[in-house]
Amino acid sequence: MALNVAKKLIKNHLASGEMDPGEEISLKIDQTLTQDATGTMVMLELEAMNLDRAKTEASAQYVDHNLIQEDNKNPDDHLFLESAAQRFGLYYSRPGNGVSHPVHMQRLAIPGKTLLGSDSHTCANGCMGMLAMGAGGIDVAMAIAGEPFYIKMPEILGVKLTGELPDWVSAKDVILEMLRRHDVKGGVGKIIEYYGPGLDQLSAMDRHVIANMGAELGATATVFPSDQEVKQFLRSQNRENDWIELTADNGATYDLHDEINLSDLEPLIAKPSSPGNVVPVREIAGTPIYQSYIGSSANPGYRDFAVAAEIVKGRKVANGVSYDINPTSRQMLTNLVKEMHIASLLQADARLHQAGCNGCIGMGQAPASGRNSLRTTPRNFPGRSGTKEDSVFLCSPETAAVSALFGEVTDPRTADFAYPKVKDPADPNVEEQILEKPLPLDEARKVELTKGPNIVSIPSMGDLPDSLEIPVILKVGDNISTDEILAGGARVLPYRSNLPAISEFTFEGVDTGYVQRAKDTKENSGHAVVGGYNYGQGSSREHAALAPRYLGLKVALVKDFARIHWQNLVNFGVLPLTFSDEADYDKLADGDTLKLDNVHEQLKKDNSKMKVTLKDKNETITVEHNLSPRQKDILLEGGLINWIKNNE
Amino acid sequence: MALNVAKKLIKNHLASGEMDPGEEISLKIDQTLTQDATGTMVMLELEAMNLDRAKTEASAQYVDHNLIQEDNKNPDDHLFLESAAQRFGLYYSRPGNGVSHPVHMQRLAIPGKTLLGSDSHTCANGCMGMLAMGAGGIDVAMAIAGEPFYIKMPEILGVKLTGELPDWVSAKDVILEMLRRHDVKGGVGKIIEYYGPGLDQLSAMDRHVIANMGAELGATATVFPSDQEVKQFLRSQNRENDWIELTADNGATYDLHDEINLSDLEPLIAKPSSPGNVVPVREIAGTPIYQSYIGSSANPGYRDFAVAAEIVKGRKVANGVSYDINPTSRQMLTNLVKEMHIASLLQADARLHQAGCNGCIGMGQAPASGRNSLRTTPRNFPGRSGTKEDSVFLCSPETAAVSALFGEVTDPRTADFAYPKVKDPADPNVEEQILEKPLPLDEARKVELTKGPNIVSIPSMGDLPDSLEIPVILKVGDNISTDEILAGGARVLPYRSNLPAISEFTFEGVDTGYVQRAKDTKENSGHAVVGGYNYGQGSSREHAALAPRYLGLKVALVKDFARIHWQNLVNFGVLPLTFSDEADYDKLADGDTLKLDNVHEQLKKDNSKMKVTLKDKNETITVEHNLSPRQKDILLEGGLINWIKNNE
Repeated sequence: MALNVAKKLIKNHLASGEMDPGEEISLKIDQTLTQDATGTMVMLELEAMNLDRAKTEASAQYVDHNLIQEDNKNPDDHLFLESAAQRFGLYYSRPGNGVSHPVHMQRLAIPGKTLLGSDSHTCANGCMGMLAMGAGGIDVAMAIAGEPFYIKMPEILGVKLTGELPDWVSAKDVILEMLRRHDVKGGVGKIIEYYGPGLDQLSAMDRHVIANMGAELGATATVFPSDQEVKQFLRSQNRENDWIELTADNGATYDLHDEINLSDLEPLIAKPSSPGNVVPVREIAGTPIYQSYIGSSANPGYRDFAVAAEIVKGRKVANGVSYDINPTSRQMLTNLVKEMHIASLLQADARLHQAGCNGCIGMGQAPASGRNSLRTTPRNFPGRSGTKEDSVFLCSPETAAVSALFGEVTDPRTADFAYPKVKDPADPNVEEQILEKPLPLDEARKVELTKGPNIVSIPSMGDLPDSLEIPVILKVGDNISTDEILAGGARVLPYRSNLPAISEFTFEGVDTGYVQRAKDTKENSGHAVVGGYNYGQGSSREHAALAPRYLGLKVALVKDFARIHWQNLVNFGVLPLTFSDEADYDKLADGDTLKLDNVHEQLKKDNSKMKVTLKDKNETITVEHNLSPRQKDILLEGGLINWIKNNE
Repeated sequence: MALNVAKKLIKNHLASGEMDPGEEISLKIDQTLTQDATGTMVMLELEAMNLDRAKTEASAQYVDHNLIQEDNKNPDDHLFLESAAQRFGLYYSRPGNGVSHPVHMQRLAIPGKTLLGSDSHTCANGCMGMLAMGAGGIDVAMAIAGEPFYIKMPEILGVKLTGELPDWVSAKDVILEMLRRHDVKGGVGKIIEYYGPGLDQLSAMDRHVIANMGAELGATATVFPSDQEVKQFLRSQNRENDWIELTADNGATYDLHDEINLSDLEPLIAKPSSPGNVVPVREIAGTPIYQSYIGSSANPGYRDFAVAAEIVKGRKVANGVSYDINPTSRQMLTNLVKEMHIASLLQADARLHQAGCNGCIGMGQAPASGRNSLRTTPRNFPGRSGTKEDSVFLCSPETAAVSALFGEVTDPRTADFAYPKVKDPADPNVEEQILEKPLPLDEARKVELTKGPNIVSIPSMGDLPDSLEIPVILKVGDNISTDEILAGGARVLPYRSNLPAISEFTFEGVDTGYVQRAKDTKENSGHAVVGGYNYGQGSSREHAALAPRYLGLKVALVKDFARIHWQNLVNFGVLPLTFSDEADYDKLADGDTLKLDNVHEQLKKDNSKMKVTLKDKNETITVEHNLSPRQKDILLEGGLINWIKNNE
């Protein structure tokens, strides 16, 4: 049977299950990626599991999120992560090396392999002909320990690319067009595979841009073939030997279809406060801006920065505009320095920041009150920039750079500039030794973990009771993101390895009373949260499940879940339920009591339905859990940590 | 009469008083400098004064301290400062332009002029043949409004430099030698003037290093002649026309004398936690380090970074060492980029940060717990790095760079490296347009101040009561710094324009109970604080006087005061007293009640003595205030804001 690229990747890594959409399958994981915001917890989990040595082909621990060191907490974590990488046989990428995704692409990505990462943009390495997926930290810990990764077999959406990108339109506009068409739920349960003649126009790094923001579509993964562009990229990294060809078979088909004629695209922009809120730039031209932000894993390429430099070269950004340059890897920054692009940026009055995630994850560079920020980053969820009531727009480097010069949102085609056709440097700097290599086993076994005072073990938590009588202490609407459940940003993330401390921020931006109400239930019944569609979208951070769980969350009852957060809830022992009849959402209010009897027996039944009594209303509604047998086992034991302890 | 440079500068600007050491004099101020941490308050003061237009020859508002934007507060301040600069006719330096002192030196410093700045390292521009002094923000506001600046006429300490610096020894070691000899009080009440044949070895920027850390000696100012080196520097900035020669007359003498033979110097280092704790590097060689930090106004020169780059070129810093590069001006960073020094640093695994004060003021780059940090910065007061119980060492770029390679404190002479003799670039980049120029008056008058929600007017405060009966609610020891009274750093400084909010941090690191105890006295009697020697050393931030004043501080009774803080206390209506008999310090304890009767009459008497009754001990001690008639007036009215209001 003729296979597309996605199915080849799955077939080659299938550990269990059938490749029928919606069925649970498990996949062998070849590589893992952890970053510092989620990685400290992963390393604590490896320690709790008594892991001796990573069982993957390559696992890398990056430090890119928490680079602002206002006190000892972040640097303590860096040292902890370095020691854990040494102890467990991982690669280690020091602060200043850059964002995990492009650095992984440069040094470790190999076509045909699977990559699981505790960062929702891990999907970016789909550009390399890999099956690359974001997951919760504990899923990645399990993968490092050699366990397969479980997902529902996705549908494959084939997107045929034809035509050629016009001047002033680039890869970012391709993924913004996908978001304009499909919005932030459009990729849920799907792998998006790009194919067709338009691919020839897109370098591996351009494809990274498109694969990266597959996360914003909610897709399980984004897949590109491994073709000559991938080969060329690996050659540029002195890794041509890692290349294999991986393309769809002749006659391969897709479960779903879409097509984009690149020639028809124009500069696009996502308005506040959703990546799906996409319009042509020309529709909002003239909107004044405070900030133009270049960088992040959504525009990490040399060309993205070089274009932003060439546009402002010999010019000055408007007074009052903060033109923030955030290099995405050390290697690329060095090349930009050597090719004088950094000099052009500085002389145009740009602010040059260290290589890393930075403002994209709320680590600095927040916009001023009531001012507009243009960013090449992947997300503009409310408050993610660090400024409450922020106003963040997502666009290409072309749009951001031209707008910086005029001090207002500008369709770059309307400026009378020559379009800079940027080439990669002829003799690029390649940092082959940028990662600390895994230590030999005998040396690794001697390494002691370096634990600062803010690194605290995960408290043990009980199993799932057979009967629950729990209050609904929070009811929220649609598209609640993990940022809203537990914010990123410099105030919160430093506590990521200290569960009691980080829990104090749970749902802070939604309802400041939640934490206290939750604590009131913690030692007794526990509690429930009710939500709408796409609950838990966005960042994969598992703290968004773990923190409310620590505060007594037993049940999340919503219209539907974002995939990664749904898995995180199961992994940490929270029962994730959806309404059989979505109209029942309206029957529920803050303060209602939910009664679930015979939970164990109901869970074990073959069908995925359960009964929930609304105690105060004397009514019973039907809900669904859609859990696999394995997930039921995990839930019954109170989550994966207990499950591992009990099944070792 | 033959005059030295310091006396020429004073004589040329004398507005009142006699040039006899200890006498109050006032000086015409030609230029002012404000930075963002102190500047927002200065601008609010100008607004309160209804100032129409700055009356100085040049006043500049820099943004260099609060560059981390975790939320709207810092960027709101930047926009406020830009609007205030436009309104009042100041130069404005945007974020990313760099640290005020080197940028001022590059663009605005003129030999023979006076410069007053609301930053304690304003003294750095003494390298340009200027009389440059740090002061409280309100002193600078007064200077911008055309008022003279009042000080006690200092003694002039002449330091003769002879010989020639050996390889691996640089300007930082000269000022560390001064600190080794004189410690952090050694310059109090003095202007330090350098002269002699050794000067020929020191470029204007080398002299900046030495003048900058005159602040750590407690000196009123540091003065260098304006000679060929200064001319050469101005020529390199396309400002040769601003040069005048200013040297000591033949036969000029000094009140006090010292001499340093540069040939005898060796690499020096200040151990934790005082800049005066200086030893030869070799004595602590082998001490492991976590961090090597290059930058700050104490080593701001092109050569300081180029040396740090040449040393690590083609090498890698040790694993686990954070090699933090903090450029000090946009112009210099561009030159370092063009000359490939930045590429050398990046390839050695350095972390490149944006141009600004950064970790020097606790804005990021804090060291890990229990680890040692080597810095080229001017200060290592406890906790200033952001990490409580930090361990910060101060040294030259040579020592910091070589130590980064070995992962331990290393005397750079012992590494078998060739000493890099760095030259300035042949064709340097000069950013002549880096500052926004003052607007024409008619345009300026139309500017509305841009006030974010965190910018709050100063509440009005009462005058000094004639009788006080106040509890001592805090007794501290020697060398309490303004960082300890009111910390810098990213948690605290964002509230600098919001007095009620920032007051919550007062004395936090010394005694967390102070704020509540102070509030308990605020609406009633007020309270006193008792201290030892050198009370209020360090940063000039006026919030260290204003915040405790807001909380009810009426009297600070100490063994002696650091000059700037003493002035700030007067300016904000706190009575600063010293013990006539220092042994009386031991008689006082937390909780004692001080009784001061007929305060007004006692203050107005010619002698500077007052009586204070220790109520609980039935004992009366004698204290001194040493206030000028003008200061008495200011104090009686409750501080300078009231005084201006009442005397306009």
